[in-house]
Amino acid sequence: MTFFSTDGMQSCKDMKGKTYRSGVYNLNTTDGVEYQTYCDMLTDGGGWTLVASIHENNAHDNGRCTVGDKWSSEQGNNELTNHGDGNWENLKTFGNVASATSDDFKSLAYFSIDDAKDIMIWQVPNNTPLSMWRSNSYLRYRTYGHFLTSFGGNLQNLFQSYYPIRQGVYNPASDNGPSFQAKYDKGSPADTLSHFGTGIQAYLTAGYIQFRTVNDWQNINAICPGVKVDTSGKQNYQNACIGGSGFWGSDFNCGDFSGMAADGYGTGTSLSVDKTLIETTFLIYYR
Amino acid sequence: MTFFSTDGMQSCKDMKGKTYRSGVYNLNTTDGVEYQTYCDMLTDGGGWTLVASIHENNAHDNGRCTVGDKWSSEQGNNELTNHGDGNWENLKTFGNVASATSDDFKSLAYFSIDDAKDIMIWQVPNNTPLSMWRSNSYLRYRTYGHFLTSFGGNLQNLFQSYYPIRQGVYNPASDNGPSFQAKYDKGSPADTLSHFGTGIQAYLTAGYIQFRTVNDWQNINAICPGVKVDTSGKQNYQNACIGGSGFWGSDFNCGDFSGMAADGYGTGTSLSVDKTLIETTFLIYYR
Amino acid sequence: MTFFSTDGMQSCKDMKGKTYRSGVYNLNTTDGVEYQTYCDMLTDGGGWTLVASIHENNAHDNGRCTVGDKWSSEQGNNELTNHGDGNWENLKTFGNVASATSDDFKSLAYFSIDDAKDIMIWQVPNNTPLSMWRSNSYLRYRTYGHFLTSFGGNLQNLFQSYYPIRQGVYNPASDNGPSFQAKYDKGSPADTLSHFGTGIQAYLTAGYIQFRTVNDWQNINAICPGVKVDTSGKQNYQNACIGGSGFWGSDFNCGDFSGMAADGYGTGTSLSVDKTLIETTFLIYYR
Repeated sequence: MTFFSTDGMQSCKDMKGKTYRSGVYNLNTTDGVEYQTYCDMLTDGGGWTLVASIHENNAHDNGRCTVGDKWSSEQGNNELTNHGDGNWENLKTFGNVASATSDDFKSLAYFSIDDAKDIMIWQVPNNTPLSMWRSNSYLRYRTYGHFLTSFGGNLQNLFQSYYPIRQGVYNPASDNGPSFQAKYDKGSPADTLSHFGTGIQAYLTAGYIQFRTVNDWQNINAICPGVKVDTSGKQNYQNACIGGSGFWGSDFNCGDFSGMAADGYGTGTSLSVDKTLIETTFLIYYR
Repeated sequence: MTFFSTDGMQSCKDMKGKTYRSGVYNLNTTDGVEYQTYCDMLTDGGGWTLVASIHENNAHDNGRCTVGDKWSSEQGNNELTNHGDGNWENLKTFGNVASATSDDFKSLAYFSIDDAKDIMIWQVPNNTPLSMWRSNSYLRYRTYGHFLTSFGGNLQNLFQSYYPIRQGVYNPASDNGPSFQAKYDKGSPADTLSHFGTGIQAYLTAGYIQFRTVNDWQNINAICPGVKVDTSGKQNYQNACIGGSGFWGSDFNCGDFSGMAADGYGTGTSLSVDKTLIETTFLIYYR
Repeated sequence: MTFFSTDGMQSCKDMKGKTYRSGVYNLNTTDGVEYQTYCDMLTDGGGWTLVASIHENNAHDNGRCTVGDKWSSEQGNNELTNHGDGNWENLKTFGNVASATSDDFKSLAYFSIDDAKDIMIWQVPNNTPLSMWRSNSYLRYRTYGHFLTSFGGNLQNLFQSYYPIRQGVYNPASDNGPSFQAKYDKGSPADTLSHFGTGIQAYLTAGYIQFRTVNDWQNINAICPGVKVDTSGKQNYQNACIGGSGFWGSDFNCGDFSGMAADGYGTGTSLSVDKTLIETTFLIYYR
């Protein structure tokens, strides 16, 4: 990997079709703020900007919605923070591109890019160094229908204006957010499904990305990575989706990976995802 | 807004009188650390450096003095952290200029600039993007008497050497810090007053900025934005001032906005400020 | 101090033997991430890169293993986070070079430099500005035997691959990590020893740096700064060593400085270190 000067570029898409290689680049917001993030220049012609990582720092059965749960809440499992910490919808940033698999990362790109059309997700083992993200990822998939164009061109606008994170407000029968089909660059829908708890797989359809799900107790998740949920059946969406509101019926469901370890850490049985998935960082890209 | 090279400049004041526009600039400390912050080049000839933002992430009636309360304490409402987290007085930094209305921000400028004479405060709705701070601000005011020259040229020196934040140490009758009259660039003293609780307005004089107030229970606030307090009357300063110590009689008074929601969130009645003020970020500039 | 362009340099060692002065430099990781840190170019020919600081934000007898205890745990004194927050072993970064004596600091250099041979520690009073670190330090010492060459060339590899931080797993009789003799550039082994509690000094040998100690209750510290411990005697290593696991028998032993204030804040008697040491930041360099 080599470092290039990219003065004035506002997203990795500005380099698409040129000879740039994947790696870390300097980008600028339209307001003149400089920052660094990772560009994937290989997938489908390249031009993908890393905008966020979702990483669970503490998936054991207590200490949840505590420090490190930035994509849900760091305020405890608390009815009064029903919107979580608001980081899906606000302008806060945190983390560092080089630490994205050891810590939550929210780049300025998450909200400063406003013409994104699709998202891509890489599932990478925690603590993988940047230079090995691509080779160590076990699943890579992306939407292709340009859905973000209809929701303000980035996820901040999607959540703020279209699908807010608010516990206790929405109806699980009617208010689940949209899902979009994904193309796979590594792995398959069947691989995706195999990592979820055996007791939850029947209620999931792999090969999709869904937003803002509402479970039976009106708790909210932000994203279901690689799956859409069955809105007619068992509504334990917290066992398959990530991020979201800061209050859940039980402490152990509160956190960036919500109920993914509800029946034990990494067991892969009943409601718990397997060890590979519980120790995964989700890298989210725009293009 | 456009990005300019400003190699070696140590504050926005170095650009005063030139043709620079308001926006984000690269500055350097005298120790050679590079950082980015916002320069306002319009107000009274320009040259104002953004040094901090005070933002309340959780003003509901619990979860106070928790994560996100960096200008008071993130250690809980706790008698042993009577000085709060010390961030008014130490060299810690946090946040990001582009996120200053969604998160607490303390720039290197807060303590590395040491020849500041005055401060300016902008009251901006939370989550306002940087490019709209000026137009969306509902109050803008600044001192003009060069008071900071007498207190070490920045707020870190003022608090560390002259007016420390220490709960339980100072006398409310004699130890309140100084207040300085402000000129308004947007809004007025009457506008300022109108946002405070109706039960507290009679004890405030708008059109000033006061530092290090001591209430009846010897709790400390760092700054009263836009007001000075009546030291002969009702000493509920926590309902009008922000930042400060990390222990208060009641949990709901502990936090970056201390008791501003003591009688309900955004009601504007009794001791509670109105919804506009409780959802405000205070941007603090030096010149 | 002056700011120099050092494009492409990956550690301060790349400047050794040249005319560079001590100060803040821009460095790059091999992955192309730019960052700033401090280079000491004076000690033994220079070339020392600041990689971390360990700072205790709250050494009073409660509020421990809370926000700010990044080198142990921010999850509370909790049996389920027996590894602490993992920051000795992972790729997370935090803090800022200019704030290194007011806040924990972990630079990208901590894990991106992989050919370090020795470490140097400076003991500096909290809140000392960068330009005064050297002159205000009261102890400066360093290993000289190139021990890191045998442990992966940085501390992240040493802890991840050789001496993990895991409470309740290792045997205090056999599993203490290695110690290495240090040369002093300021102060002496006797000075070092004098700051520890009078009740613990007999069990310490000053003039060494030891890693991964295991006490009687199988709690783990990461580093003993300036001392090695007596593995045949009283195993209160938490009163002399820093960083480590996130669960201890008693709340007041949990934290970045673990049990250094176990018998009162800064008393220097019994198990408590003196006021100088409890208010110290440890700056850690590689070369």
